[in-house]
Amino acid sequence: MEKPYVVGIDMGGTNTVFGVVDARGTILYSGSIKTSKHANVSDYVDELAQAIDIVIKQAGGYDKIKGIGIGAPNGNYFSGCIESAANLPWKGRLPLAQMISERLEHIPVTMTNDANAAAIGEMTYGAARGMKDFIMITLGTGVGSGIVIGGNLVYGHDGFAGELGHVIVRRHNGRMCGCGRQGCLETYASATGIARTAREYLEIRTENSLLRALDPDTITSKDIYDAAIQNDKIALDIFEATGHMLGEAFADFIAFSSPEAIILFGGLAKAGKLISEPIQEAMERNVLDVFKGKTKLIFSQLKEADAAILGASALGWEAKEYN
Amino acid sequence: MEKPYVVGIDMGGTNTVFGVVDARGTILYSGSIKTSKHANVSDYVDELAQAIDIVIKQAGGYDKIKGIGIGAPNGNYFSGCIESAANLPWKGRLPLAQMISERLEHIPVTMTNDANAAAIGEMTYGAARGMKDFIMITLGTGVGSGIVIGGNLVYGHDGFAGELGHVIVRRHNGRMCGCGRQGCLETYASATGIARTAREYLEIRTENSLLRALDPDTITSKDIYDAAIQNDKIALDIFEATGHMLGEAFADFIAFSSPEAIILFGGLAKAGKLISEPIQEAMERNVLDVFKGKTKLIFSQLKEADAAILGASALGWEAKEYN
Repeated sequence: MEKPYVVGIDMGGTNTVFGVVDARGTILYSGSIKTSKHANVSDYVDELAQAIDIVIKQAGGYDKIKGIGIGAPNGNYFSGCIESAANLPWKGRLPLAQMISERLEHIPVTMTNDANAAAIGEMTYGAARGMKDFIMITLGTGVGSGIVIGGNLVYGHDGFAGELGHVIVRRHNGRMCGCGRQGCLETYASATGIARTAREYLEIRTENSLLRALDPDTITSKDIYDAAIQNDKIALDIFEATGHMLGEAFADFIAFSSPEAIILFGGLAKAGKLISEPIQEAMERNVLDVFKGKTKLIFSQLKEADAAILGASALGWEAKEYN
Repeated sequence: MEKPYVVGIDMGGTNTVFGVVDARGTILYSGSIKTSKHANVSDYVDELAQAIDIVIKQAGGYDKIKGIGIGAPNGNYFSGCIESAANLPWKGRLPLAQMISERLEHIPVTMTNDANAAAIGEMTYGAARGMKDFIMITLGTGVGSGIVIGGNLVYGHDGFAGELGHVIVRRHNGRMCGCGRQGCLETYASATGIARTAREYLEIRTENSLLRALDPDTITSKDIYDAAIQNDKIALDIFEATGHMLGEAFADFIAFSSPEAIILFGGLAKAGKLISEPIQEAMERNVLDVFKGKTKLIFSQLKEADAAILGASALGWEAKEYN
């Protein structure tokens, strides 16, 4: 009998969540541990493996598990290693996939970064079922992407393809990015980017705004959303400007891979039409004629609470051995 | 016995060239006809089929031909049709692949656009042999591209992917493009783009230049090259600016698909280091850290006179029936 379950592990800078998932995308058993608690990566993997061992046994044991998928910052599909991830406590090249497999009866493990995992999750369980060509854009603390072409995730020759948060959208006088360059899409369209836009607007413009009641340094994308749904003009303009920036960038992405859909995921996607309408407008206005009206703009169909585990788990169906 | 030859057809706005090609990329027999002579597309296809019939018989007959590949402006891989190509005399949707197959004993025919054909040619016979991930950039009258990911050409969901000459490199005050938009890479980095840059430089700057002896309206990229190799400062600066623009764009392409190489082809590529050095410099300076030093910048290894036929012919090895 085909093994009926996979394990998904999502490593974040703060927490690591994991679960046993069936072929329909139901999370049967799940758990979490603190990522940042351990100074030493093997202590972390030991604790994680013990916690996963429990859910595997709850699900009926190791015979039921086809594979394990890991979504991790800078996780490399080809090597199964995390390579110099800025927001993890351990440095250098960490062979996470192998370390986890060794501690869990050598179940095959596949790893990739979180945005790629989200794309595979969407293709396996979500809005991209049946699609062969789409781009997943994750609008969170940063802007990530997972690109699917011809039904396969694009890893590139080195496993690091799909860094669309770091295409340059402002060539001159662009905002400083955490990557050390200037003008990256992420500096405008991430949760921190949109908060930065809010501070700029509040400084430059003079109208009243609900946002003026807040400490500018702690404004969040949620605050801007709350103001926008109350028809606050500045907040609405911030969403419009952010959406336009994304739409312009998407028009260039379409020239590259002509996807059937671009799928939005993450915190900012929760703004719904406030963000999707200006994206759609700018995307259609900026796209080459031959692509007009062809690429759908849709939202992820995965529940955010489950999406991280589901995305990672979807990799487990194609898990392999790393050497 | 496996059929040993393919036929390649390259349709240009002025001439259509074709040839019988073996598995090593040797053109055994070739010929050409005028594309623009016939007001009616079936008259054109009739003449073309008769001319190809001759080279097929020279090569030993229809039994020797595995397939036919066509590279054509706006040629669509999925439909086998040319769809509204600006520089062909016939309008609308033309089922070229089927029309040619019908007139040549139903040999299977595959079609794509010229830049995609060039990429497949490079992968089959040229500098990209053995590569699974690369981007071909054709620097001709326009700027075209063929993107290969995981060993497959990227067609997108509609067959029109890979229009990298039309990514926007100047969001504000960009040059008008033939596509109706502003700031496309093609408006700067094509043969006509670089001539436009020359006219701007000659108008704005005051130094002497060999280019001042020429009528600005007829300056060609070849003129600029000729001046640059004589150390003409303005001509050198034009190549540097053009290369920088390309290098900046390439850095964004790398963030998308992380290719092993970017391959330059076409008239401007003949400028050699004059164009490749500033590209390389700007590409490395602008690329995200994780990609630095990884993507090679190389020139096509196909002779330009043969490349069009070879590129198209390479498609013939995977030719299929269109319905």
